[in-house]
Amino acid sequence: MEYKQVILVRSDLKLPKGKMSAQAAHASVEATLRADSKKVASWRAQGQKKVVLKVDDEKALIKFFQEAKDNNLSASLITDAGKTIIAPGTKTCVGIGPDLEEEIDSITGELKMM
Amino acid sequence: MEYKQVILVRSDLKLPKGKMSAQAAHASVEATLRADSKKVASWRAQGQKKVVLKVDDEKALIKFFQEAKDNNLSASLITDAGKTIIAPGTKTCVGIGPDLEEEIDSITGELKMM
Repeated sequence: MEYKQVILVRSDLKLPKGKMSAQAAHASVEATLRADSKKVASWRAQGQKKVVLKVDDEKALIKFFQEAKDNNLSASLITDAGKTIIAPGTKTCVGIGPDLEEEIDSITGELKMM
Repeated sequence: MEYKQVILVRSDLKLPKGKMSAQAAHASVEATLRADSKKVASWRAQGQKKVVLKVDDEKALIKFFQEAKDNNLSASLITDAGKTIIAPGTKTCVGIGPDLEEEIDSITGELKMM
């Protein structure tokens, strides 16, 4: 059984790479800390598979976050403090999992890699 | 007392932003899971401050990783599996902390943001 985590990033914000990396890391850590510890241990032992996917805008970001929660997957929605670059309160990323690959793909399987 | 985490990324690899985000998230999660749980809790309560910094090359990356470990800071050195874009075994990133800001700045304070 393969575990993975996906990180959804808004492509419309056109975040610079350093900013995007920090926001993605935030989503990843927060989803991991909220996940079941046995799933985290399995995922870590398998090499922590992580895929960064793009979503079009805030509406899509929230839709996937809600779907993940509705399916009892660990999920984090990241709002930037906005001290730099983007406006305060901007929703930037969502982390989902770690969980079974097929569970995650059933929700985000059609998204493209960033 | 302010807690933070830094993520060091090699600028010489010129990673595309999706790849850089995934590697940074990997470093961030792994350093977090290795850190003292009370420090993680404090850092999380303060908003998970995270800064992505750039280092010139692999030699510099390893130097900072070693200095962090020598100072008893949680640290992770990430080696990419190399299925895409970069050669297998390439060291891409280092995560340090979360720990007290001043402890981390004493090691990486002169690095510039990515």
